[in-house]
Amino acid sequence: MSLREIKMERTRELIVEVAFSRFQEQGFAATTMEEIAAAAEVGTRTVYRYFPTKEALALSEFVAVFDASFHALRDCPEETSVSEVLRAGLESLLRSYEEEPDRLRAAHAIAHETPSVRAHFAYLLETHEATLQQEVAHRIGGASAELLASLAVAQTGAVFGSAVRKWYTTGAPDDLRKQVRAALQALRAGEVPAPAPLA
Amino acid sequence: MSLREIKMERTRELIVEVAFSRFQEQGFAATTMEEIAAAAEVGTRTVYRYFPTKEALALSEFVAVFDASFHALRDCPEETSVSEVLRAGLESLLRSYEEEPDRLRAAHAIAHETPSVRAHFAYLLETHEATLQQEVAHRIGGASAELLASLAVAQTGAVFGSAVRKWYTTGAPDDLRKQVRAALQALRAGEVPAPAPLA
Repeated sequence: MSLREIKMERTRELIVEVAFSRFQEQGFAATTMEEIAAAAEVGTRTVYRYFPTKEALALSEFVAVFDASFHALRDCPEETSVSEVLRAGLESLLRSYEEEPDRLRAAHAIAHETPSVRAHFAYLLETHEATLQQEVAHRIGGASAELLASLAVAQTGAVFGSAVRKWYTTGAPDDLRKQVRAALQALRAGEVPAPAPLA
Repeated sequence: MSLREIKMERTRELIVEVAFSRFQEQGFAATTMEEIAAAAEVGTRTVYRYFPTKEALALSEFVAVFDASFHALRDCPEETSVSEVLRAGLESLLRSYEEEPDRLRAAHAIAHETPSVRAHFAYLLETHEATLQQEVAHRIGGASAELLASLAVAQTGAVFGSAVRKWYTTGAPDDLRKQVRAALQALRAGEVPAPAPLA
């Protein structure tokens, strides 16, 4: 990273930090981009240069989390089994949440309460899953690769998603891994009911 | 339904029909609510009374489809197995798509191209899944009901979602059932790779 990049990264991090402390003090809706800029001692235009909308600012941490998980998955050697590749993606998600539990919990809370943020989050999640699917399909190969990859990624996402929902509404910070483990165990043990065959 | 309700339903349907023919002629972005109102020969305020935003108008069919699927699932007798309940929900989705393939395909295309619609769609889907999860959890019962229900609903959704994606980008109108059947078969046969256990 060049000095310029390091400075940009610091400014960005400062804006996010200031924004989240405002969100937690007075709520997402009541906080303006102008206020965030003032508290971070930068111009409003600077804030907008980093984050086109307040929604994007609230969700910026998820973008980083998803990118890390995609890279963990993509960086597995070609010969790694698909199950191990999926595990690598899941393990990366868990590590990110373990590193930044407070901010991610706050971001989930905002997404849950605010329809515009929730919609944007759902969109991020969907595009992230599509990217993962391509990578997994490439590794599965063969005629039904696309189908199997989309089911496998959705399943893995559901394992993490169900655990996160439980964690951020109720849990202690270290509960997430336990929840993910329980969900994964249920899935692997074939305990999850599948629809009966179509007529 | 009262006469008043029937008239309201007709107006609503007329607005949606006119809107979709505009969307297909000139694109979603280029069409205004004012134009839709003029083409349907109603006031702009009437259009807004039915649909708060153009996004909501484009996605109104999905709301009906999701409602029908929830009712199909909820109306299963208490003693129905969870697999049969999930099948009932899936079958209802399929029937809706078979009844209105053109409009649903057009709505998917708009959602795919337009970030604001796609975000709203992802949000609809998420809230729909949450409703289904509650109903399924209630039927599973026991300590891990919530966990199993959220995985089961996500899996069922993935079966339908992967089929729809294939159908609306490439397929012939009658292909959807074939795709759903293939996805369900792969899932039931245990062909979908699950993540390896966490370290």
